[in-house]
Amino acid sequence: MTAASATGIASRLAQGAMTSVALAQAALDRISAENDRDRIFISVMADAAIEAAQASDARRAAGHALGPLDGLPIAVKDNIDVAGSITTSGSRHDFGGPAGADASVVARLRAAGAVILGKLNLHEGALGATTDNPFWGRCENPAVPGHTPGGSSGGSGAVVAAGIVPIALGTDTMGSVRIPAAYCGLWGLKPTRGLVSTSGLHYLSWTLDTIGPLATSAADLALAITAMAGHDARDPRSAAAPAGWSAALGAAPSLDGITLGRIDAASLADCEPAVVEAYDALLDGLSRQGATLRSVTVEGWEPGKARRAGLLMSEAECGSLIGEALDMHPDRFSQGFRDMIAYGRGARAERLAKAYWLFDALSAAALAALSGVDAIVLPTAPQRAFPHGAPAPANQADFTALANIAGLPAVAFPLPAPDGGAPASAQLLGHPFSEGRLLSIAEQAAG
Amino acid sequence: MTAASATGIASRLAQGAMTSVALAQAALDRISAENDRDRIFISVMADAAIEAAQASDARRAAGHALGPLDGLPIAVKDNIDVAGSITTSGSRHDFGGPAGADASVVARLRAAGAVILGKLNLHEGALGATTDNPFWGRCENPAVPGHTPGGSSGGSGAVVAAGIVPIALGTDTMGSVRIPAAYCGLWGLKPTRGLVSTSGLHYLSWTLDTIGPLATSAADLALAITAMAGHDARDPRSAAAPAGWSAALGAAPSLDGITLGRIDAASLADCEPAVVEAYDALLDGLSRQGATLRSVTVEGWEPGKARRAGLLMSEAECGSLIGEALDMHPDRFSQGFRDMIAYGRGARAERLAKAYWLFDALSAAALAALSGVDAIVLPTAPQRAFPHGAPAPANQADFTALANIAGLPAVAFPLPAPDGGAPASAQLLGHPFSEGRLLSIAEQAAG
Repeated sequence: MTAASATGIASRLAQGAMTSVALAQAALDRISAENDRDRIFISVMADAAIEAAQASDARRAAGHALGPLDGLPIAVKDNIDVAGSITTSGSRHDFGGPAGADASVVARLRAAGAVILGKLNLHEGALGATTDNPFWGRCENPAVPGHTPGGSSGGSGAVVAAGIVPIALGTDTMGSVRIPAAYCGLWGLKPTRGLVSTSGLHYLSWTLDTIGPLATSAADLALAITAMAGHDARDPRSAAAPAGWSAALGAAPSLDGITLGRIDAASLADCEPAVVEAYDALLDGLSRQGATLRSVTVEGWEPGKARRAGLLMSEAECGSLIGEALDMHPDRFSQGFRDMIAYGRGARAERLAKAYWLFDALSAAALAALSGVDAIVLPTAPQRAFPHGAPAPANQADFTALANIAGLPAVAFPLPAPDGGAPASAQLLGHPFSEGRLLSIAEQAAG
Repeated sequence: MTAASATGIASRLAQGAMTSVALAQAALDRISAENDRDRIFISVMADAAIEAAQASDARRAAGHALGPLDGLPIAVKDNIDVAGSITTSGSRHDFGGPAGADASVVARLRAAGAVILGKLNLHEGALGATTDNPFWGRCENPAVPGHTPGGSSGGSGAVVAAGIVPIALGTDTMGSVRIPAAYCGLWGLKPTRGLVSTSGLHYLSWTLDTIGPLATSAADLALAITAMAGHDARDPRSAAAPAGWSAALGAAPSLDGITLGRIDAASLADCEPAVVEAYDALLDGLSRQGATLRSVTVEGWEPGKARRAGLLMSEAECGSLIGEALDMHPDRFSQGFRDMIAYGRGARAERLAKAYWLFDALSAAALAALSGVDAIVLPTAPQRAFPHGAPAPANQADFTALANIAGLPAVAFPLPAPDGGAPASAQLLGHPFSEGRLLSIAEQAAG
């Protein structure tokens, strides 16, 4: 099944070559036929989607189309509120019944005309990266059958890779947008902290969580993030993008004059050889295209230690929010999830404080490492998609968590598999609010 | 002893009516004569002060005076590094010996020509508000003999109230600049989070701590904060002030057209009657001067609950930083301080996470309460200075902690005592980076 292009669909809609209703219906038909097997969706809002598509077609017929997202089907990770739908966060709990309102980011996309098809499977509680969900099923990776799509936004990767929708929303706490993008051969964007409101997100960690899009190209991510970004007084971390912020491509029309940071070979020691090979080939290509490469070091960054600190922060913050629900309804959460949350709740406060302190230090170090370079190039994950049921490597988020810790934007993009197998992936980590520049550089890097 | 005015001294220095060396020597003589009794200073750097004063006089003689702070004696709370001096934070510990460098804010003041006389007594660990220090003595309140100067920046209040220096640096975690300003009849400024670098501060809570000046007038605070403010890459919370930021007075040339928020009578239930009387008189005066008063509510703000959350955050964050030093050298800290830190270290992480979450909610609520008003008027503390040795009220920081929680600026200024006794105090809590406007409004409010 070919993955769908948002810009391509938008242009066919604009030309009258297809209708939004036909698009939505085709997607719903596929979900009906395939979801028992693929476990990509947790819930589907078929009637509302058809109604929204009809409204879009009517606007277009009247000459009042809202913009490039008008009529495009999208899908939303099931830890983000969509009005009228229960947000499960991948557990069996209903957290008080159907959401009364759309999350701010969903409302923004809806206002831009996007048609919301349904809610996507995820790793339970967004706390893990296989999306082999004990309640909602083992989500398949359409790019590498039988393998995990990654996580925690596994359904968000799978739904785009399957070509059911061109854009899906995921959430990224330590890599949960970028890891599924990597495993599914897609593009994924983790925005600057505060650029996209997280109001209406069921937090794993309010400190680390960001909402980001997955799609099949830089242009599609630019389209999505432009609609998603915007200040929101309901989110205390919301930050207005600086004047001139734009995710539009073209900020870096060539790689000439671009300086990129690379990490040293020792940092790649735990990577699968194919990932290292793909990373090295990418750096060679960047250099040939005129980019200057420079070794950078993030002072004090020990990926494993930072990851464990992020995990404790996630477990404690999540536990502080849903601990009571978990105590009252233990059967609605898996034993494994309960154990992780119990660990975070019961840890000594001193350890949690140390985790916050480490994050401050690493934020400063990441900004220092970026001074003098346009972006830092990293592998997205140390490995590629692995078979469902295989033990999950502990280090999946080692390269991705830094962006969450430092609140920086990062774009993951696919690299050709050197062995013809599953796709590899790299990410560009950039300065605050440099989404547009990162997407432009990545587009050229990806060739 | 009359308190000193920075602007007054600056103008006499500029006129050649006094020298910096004479000023420094007079202050040092007073310290020698009085410190055994008043316990305002923990350490004095007499030789370095005289040298700095000589250099200032030489600059001035050569026509190269640096600005209004050049040659002015100041003093620094002993939890802020001054190169070559041990920073005790009010304990007996040396935390690794003399500081190798000035804290960023000290370096800024030194670069502006200020003469640093010494390090000031504080409540042990900045964790309390009486400054009856078990190691460094009971700091006297020159404005109300036999009474506490407040805290934790008690020495900073006492040194200005005694007229030894016109400006002192304090730190404010939940009110530790404003409470001593209130008890000593002074002006105190808690700046917007990030405006003044905290690099070189020995944190109680890196989340809440800010460094602020105490002085005898709005004009002197404006002078001080202008020199103190500035972006510093060494502080991850450092924020560049927006273009046009200025602490200069005159931003609000009259109270006509100014709208101020007032809190309801129920919120004042636990206040000493004289504080309520002074607050009501202030509001009447503001109204007569043309200000519009409007009742405001900070949604979800329960001062006692917020204070307890701030205390846990302080104890846990401080414990995560100095816990090991405390375990190794228990005799260098008081039993009471050790107990508080042990409590914070050992609390469940879930509780600490809940405290951070509450703070986020209150930050948003405080900003919402400020929308439509220029500032909110509050008492500074629920009571006035109380006798040394009397039990410390638990609620001293109930009105001040909100500014720290929300990262907002607040200026405390003295109100006449309705009964002719100890001074009362009010504070203006304002929008981010509105220091200049707050000082202007407060100056007119204070009449």
